[in-house]
Amino acid sequence: MAPSDQGNPQKPPLTAKSEAALQHHANMFDRWLLNAIGSRFAPAGVRFRLQNSGEAGFTGDSPLATVTIPDHSTLIRLLLDPEIEFGEAYAAGRIDVAGDLPAFIEAIFRLAAPQNFVSALRSRWLDLMHKNTLRGSRANIHRHYDLGTDFYKLWLDSQLVYTCAYFSEPSMSLEAAQVAKMDHVCRKLQLRPGETVVEAGCGWGALALHMAREYGVRVKAFNISKEQIKYARQQAKIAGLEARVEFIDDDYRNISGQYDAFVSVGMLEHVGKNNYEEFGRVIQRSLPSAGRGLLHFIGRNRPQQLNAWIRKRIFSGGYTPSLRESLEFLEPLDVSVLDVENLRMHYAWTLDHWLNRFEQSSHHVAKMLGEEFVRVWRLYLAGSLAGFRAGTMQLFQIVFAGKDCKAIPWTRDHLYSSTDKELKWFHANA
Amino acid sequence: MAPSDQGNPQKPPLTAKSEAALQHHANMFDRWLLNAIGSRFAPAGVRFRLQNSGEAGFTGDSPLATVTIPDHSTLIRLLLDPEIEFGEAYAAGRIDVAGDLPAFIEAIFRLAAPQNFVSALRSRWLDLMHKNTLRGSRANIHRHYDLGTDFYKLWLDSQLVYTCAYFSEPSMSLEAAQVAKMDHVCRKLQLRPGETVVEAGCGWGALALHMAREYGVRVKAFNISKEQIKYARQQAKIAGLEARVEFIDDDYRNISGQYDAFVSVGMLEHVGKNNYEEFGRVIQRSLPSAGRGLLHFIGRNRPQQLNAWIRKRIFSGGYTPSLRESLEFLEPLDVSVLDVENLRMHYAWTLDHWLNRFEQSSHHVAKMLGEEFVRVWRLYLAGSLAGFRAGTMQLFQIVFAGKDCKAIPWTRDHLYSSTDKELKWFHANA
Repeated sequence: MAPSDQGNPQKPPLTAKSEAALQHHANMFDRWLLNAIGSRFAPAGVRFRLQNSGEAGFTGDSPLATVTIPDHSTLIRLLLDPEIEFGEAYAAGRIDVAGDLPAFIEAIFRLAAPQNFVSALRSRWLDLMHKNTLRGSRANIHRHYDLGTDFYKLWLDSQLVYTCAYFSEPSMSLEAAQVAKMDHVCRKLQLRPGETVVEAGCGWGALALHMAREYGVRVKAFNISKEQIKYARQQAKIAGLEARVEFIDDDYRNISGQYDAFVSVGMLEHVGKNNYEEFGRVIQRSLPSAGRGLLHFIGRNRPQQLNAWIRKRIFSGGYTPSLRESLEFLEPLDVSVLDVENLRMHYAWTLDHWLNRFEQSSHHVAKMLGEEFVRVWRLYLAGSLAGFRAGTMQLFQIVFAGKDCKAIPWTRDHLYSSTDKELKWFHANA
Repeated sequence: MAPSDQGNPQKPPLTAKSEAALQHHANMFDRWLLNAIGSRFAPAGVRFRLQNSGEAGFTGDSPLATVTIPDHSTLIRLLLDPEIEFGEAYAAGRIDVAGDLPAFIEAIFRLAAPQNFVSALRSRWLDLMHKNTLRGSRANIHRHYDLGTDFYKLWLDSQLVYTCAYFSEPSMSLEAAQVAKMDHVCRKLQLRPGETVVEAGCGWGALALHMAREYGVRVKAFNISKEQIKYARQQAKIAGLEARVEFIDDDYRNISGQYDAFVSVGMLEHVGKNNYEEFGRVIQRSLPSAGRGLLHFIGRNRPQQLNAWIRKRIFSGGYTPSLRESLEFLEPLDVSVLDVENLRMHYAWTLDHWLNRFEQSSHHVAKMLGEEFVRVWRLYLAGSLAGFRAGTMQLFQIVFAGKDCKAIPWTRDHLYSSTDKELKWFHANA
């Protein structure tokens, strides 16, 4: 809508001629704004179309994507705070993207737009709203993970592993790749029968059950999502693993006791930077000097806030650290970092599977949770896929060991040797 | 020697009785000091013996080591600044260690003595003396690496690789393990024929020649040790690789041009913390956004000065960073860290080989460079071996890639698969 003063009684009524002139100037202004966006994103192969004001951006025959903006108001919002408003307009169905959605977002990410003032302010506001206090974390986690297990069952693998899979071969199925990931984690941790493991953030319990079943360890697994804990406990019962796996409905900050190994897969993203020191202390008090641990988390090349729209709509209170930031809380523990692996492309591949499965169930999801929900999640999954492809997001697995740890492998050969699956140990002091 | 005032004419001469009393008190004091050291290191299984004042420390039948301190003056120096004075007394042959030298030092390291005030002051002084300016670095490097290639030939492998080897099997020879290390580095970098590589700090040139010969790349290798560069150029000539490997007598800060890959093995330890930012900028300007790199260096679990005696006698101006500290200069480059491997136990193994070879040639070394030199180097090699065993020192290999790098392997399988040696590529955008 173009601005209009008709409702103001203190000004003389506009003549038809001056109204037309105003409209003309408004259109000129919109056209100018559209061109500004267009020239910025033309190199990414993106074309923009504004209702009644023509097109701008990529001028070639086959644009990567064509974005249709319905009106002046949406255009202004996009310019003021693209980080949140693009997602909001897309979620509301006000904006349309014709073309490959993940490829479009990837191209935008590669152009790396700097955050503007309005975006920065709203980003700060979101952080204030979603603090990761003991109570705040419960609310943040509830919002995402308690959406209903039936929903997640529609597009995750059969064990409901909602973290980056490990495709030892790109052609393997998602189901197999999630099992391969769990084995990759267990082999990195060199788990041995009879050992004890504490897991901080356990999702629907797949890894905890896998560790107990396949590696013979005893596990205490912590989670503050009621839905997930309930489901995990059922699975433990079905698998007859109740005696060896305890699912605890509590915050990682309340972990007590000591264990041979500490593992956390896809939970650090919910801890928040303000709590890193405390997270480090939890690891420290959970492990003896002979202990070891593994952290698996989404990271960055450089410190950067998680996308504001993602924090608003998907992960309240989320923060994905750079590798250096994660070492800031590990360093005071005097542990040795043994291994860091970046599985970024595996997360892109995982998300590709998830997005395809999600799209196949989108009618079902729409019935369960509404059309807007489908659009929000489509954008979230496509955007995440794009982020891992473009390299704005990374996936780190860090293995570390206390100074008296004897389970330090001589090489990483045992992670890869397919004919020789038994673990090779090097006991430095044996 | 006990204190004596006999030479002072303003005081009356001591009677035989008071002289004996003073001597008695001096002995009591020494005894008290000896007990203080003894009780501190008894848990490490170490016994201390002071000439004329008996023993202290470990009281069992078979001490790990027995340290004989010749006199009061050495005892006092050891207490005031153990970090430097132990090495100085050992070098001068004033102190004797009966037992396994590396095992003794390892046990001491595991007790982790805090640095005292005198040590801290002398440590600062050493840093001021050995600044890594362009000129200072030349002096620091000259002092160690220009000792004479004939000396290093006595105990290094045939290719003179003076960095941590990679024993893919612990039983392999040092020669084989140094070749395996060079291959490990090249495979991590995914070198392809025709590519260009810049090497910052190239020792006697083995890696540069190996990369050119085995992987078909063109190399520019920088070094400021005149002896090493001279030798490396001769080797290039002998191997007929002069057209593909250029050895440049210059500082890493003067690297110019762009390359497909940046590699630095065992040089970061000489850069010094004050120059990390500049080192980062050198990497940045040497690599296009599609480039990648590998850093191989001695590191720490936490920031810590290099042992002061080592800085005084062996590596002037040396500093070994924590992993976090190394990421501080990589982070601003916006590169993705793909892989970090800790090869600490491989350095212990390498040093074990070096120390054995060194001992076998010690008579020869003594003739070339003197008895004190032998003791200094024995302590340096044994102490380093102990540090890697005890975990006070780490060996990190970091692989990183620019945001447009296509040479990102799908898994690390290609580093380990012995039957399938060809590189497996995953071209994300192919």
